[in-house]
Amino acid sequence: MTPKPLNDHLSWRYATKKMDPAKAVPQEKVDAIIEAIRMAPTSSGTQPFELIVVTNAQVRGQIAEAAGGQAQITDGSHLLVFAAWDNYTADRIDDVVQLNVDARGDLPMLHAYYDKLKAAYLPRDAEENYAHAARQAYIALGVALLAAAEQEVDSTPMEGFDPEAVDAILGLKERGLRSVVLMPLGYRDAAGDWLLPMDKVRKSRDAIVTQVG
Amino acid sequence: MTPKPLNDHLSWRYATKKMDPAKAVPQEKVDAIIEAIRMAPTSSGTQPFELIVVTNAQVRGQIAEAAGGQAQITDGSHLLVFAAWDNYTADRIDDVVQLNVDARGDLPMLHAYYDKLKAAYLPRDAEENYAHAARQAYIALGVALLAAAEQEVDSTPMEGFDPEAVDAILGLKERGLRSVVLMPLGYRDAAGDWLLPMDKVRKSRDAIVTQVG
Repeated sequence: MTPKPLNDHLSWRYATKKMDPAKAVPQEKVDAIIEAIRMAPTSSGTQPFELIVVTNAQVRGQIAEAAGGQAQITDGSHLLVFAAWDNYTADRIDDVVQLNVDARGDLPMLHAYYDKLKAAYLPRDAEENYAHAARQAYIALGVALLAAAEQEVDSTPMEGFDPEAVDAILGLKERGLRSVVLMPLGYRDAAGDWLLPMDKVRKSRDAIVTQVG
Repeated sequence: MTPKPLNDHLSWRYATKKMDPAKAVPQEKVDAIIEAIRMAPTSSGTQPFELIVVTNAQVRGQIAEAAGGQAQITDGSHLLVFAAWDNYTADRIDDVVQLNVDARGDLPMLHAYYDKLKAAYLPRDAEENYAHAARQAYIALGVALLAAAEQEVDSTPMEGFDPEAVDAILGLKERGLRSVVLMPLGYRDAAGDWLLPMDKVRKSRDAIVTQVG
């Protein structure tokens, strides 16, 4: 595949409304999307979320039910579930420290940095820490939507679901995770997708940008 | 510039710690980054944030003070401030409807969709709506970090600042906006940046991905 400018990916992609259930995304394309998510930047490098990749049709059916029946979840071939940490804990941050020490050496500045992070995060309530972790997952979502477009794979970011139901279906609560956003992968059913022929709608630059010169 | 794969951008970029105050980012590169932010997807297409582009040195100095003195804000040439809506309002959503009508026609389904959105968002408290808007800004942040890398412009995502102080400096509160995240743009001072020579640290795929097959 010839690499393309980022803006081509942004123009090509759209929130696919109808996917073709007969077409599955090849594993190497799913792998490329996952790799981009893995490499996405996060605050202090904590990567405070996990990715659940669901192919099982029955489980996807249950999740679709918890998402108002949105058919892309079952018509697509893969469902990515971004699941953020329900809290920052000493153990979780210590694992990040260890990963840093392994890659960069046992530097005092590393320990000092993450000690300061623990002092800031650990006393905060779980809900505030979860909200912070969820935001990091959204950075990766932005990256993932571009990565899917680069692979010419269709996708639909979805917030309209019952997170507690999805957590129960996937056993996330026991793992200290909370589902944040869904991203089905598949291929558009061009004839059946009402959104595809419509123009992309974006505000003008003037509407969203203020210059302070 | 020859387009590159997304993973090249993800590998090239890093949270630049020391920028060269003698080098300014050319306007066309800033424009390309802004364009990517403008085209970034958001929930229901509301684009519930604005972007403040600060070049004024005095204002950047004040913001740096509200950000623990992080020098990239003043050593870089441009500071992007992502500022989310403090709430969803009927007026703000009506503007989005109008934009859709202008581009796609006065379709009953458009009105039905956004009427439903209003019914869901408007009764919620401002803090919940702001949190939702802020997440959308993080999608654009993910896109912006890649767009900067594509332009071979260095950047540093920053959460460590006093949002109320930044809101006051930029007059955001009066405009119904709240600063969410900062992103200075500039060029690395390779000799002075302690992070540059260090390996990038990321968790293994196994550590963050669960397969449900």
